Amino acid sequence: MATEKMLDDLFLETLKDIYYAEKQLLKALPKMAKAADDAKLAQGFEMHAEETEGHVERLERIFEILGKPARGKTCDAILGIIEEAKSSMEDFKGSPANDAGLIAAGQAAEHYEIARYGSLKAWAQQLGMSEAVKLLDQTLKEEKATDQKLTDLALSQENAKAA
Amino acid sequence: MATEKMLDDLFLETLKDIYYAEKQLLKALPKMAKAADDAKLAQGFEMHAEETEGHVERLERIFEILGKPARGKTCDAILGIIEEAKSSMEDFKGSPANDAGLIAAGQAAEHYEIARYGSLKAWAQQLGMSEAVKLLDQTLKEEKATDQKLTDLALSQENAKAA
Repeated sequence: MATEKMLDDLFLETLKDIYYAEKQLLKALPKMAKAADDAKLAQGFEMHAEETEGHVERLERIFEILGKPARGKTCDAILGIIEEAKSSMEDFKGSPANDAGLIAAGQAAEHYEIARYGSLKAWAQQLGMSEAVKLLDQTLKEEKATDQKLTDLALSQENAKAA
Repeated sequence: MATEKMLDDLFLETLKDIYYAEKQLLKALPKMAKAADDAKLAQGFEMHAEETEGHVERLERIFEILGKPARGKTCDAILGIIEEAKSSMEDFKGSPANDAGLIAAGQAAEHYEIARYGSLKAWAQQLGMSEAVKLLDQTLKEEKATDQKLTDLALSQENAKAA
């Protein structure tokens, strides 16, 4: 009994953490799209902002399953990642390395989310929350796909420069 | 010429960022090992602390290749991740979810590093820094292996509880 209870708590705390993180990214992604020089990169950030709205809705559904209000908890990690993204945007604005910095910032955010959704999915499995497992897995797959797209974009930019 | 210069700058800035992050993790990992209830998890954190010393040395070699002093730059992202790890350690101390929280914190740190080393390796390739590519790739592989070990540990704990 105690085990279940405590893992429940950790699950809820982490759910609040990623809910806050997704909401912060909802605000940051359009700024990153605006800052991008490459049209495909800008479009990628815009598309991911739309996807992120879906991630927020899925998290809200999980709060609902838990019978808890959807509420975020300040996530220092994502604030740090966004802070670094801002510095990069300021420092490399107008530079040919601008987009490389934006891609790196995007990937840092994706990897944070991949770690968190991976833990949440494992705990949901352990807690027997099958609908939550499915929802978390959908988002996890989208975050991994976005990370891969950013890697591909970095490579295509490299090749375009080399050509 | 300008392109190279600017990517050089981004590479150096990010090198300083991860150098700072690794040094912070060198301090955090022994604390995480001490906080772990499971002996294998504690041992895993200790082993990774040793590996981290090697990562720091590789970064110092890359600073040397660049002819720059090895100097860190405050990395807000890793500070946030470590801050969250501390909260989890305090909140779940003595609870059966203690180790689950530590594993999650470890994976958040690993994923941050995987993102940063992935970017650095790609840029080193673009800049024609072959020795740096090799060094960064070695560390990247070790970070990915550690992330996988943490996933395996999470699963084995789950199975042990289910048995």
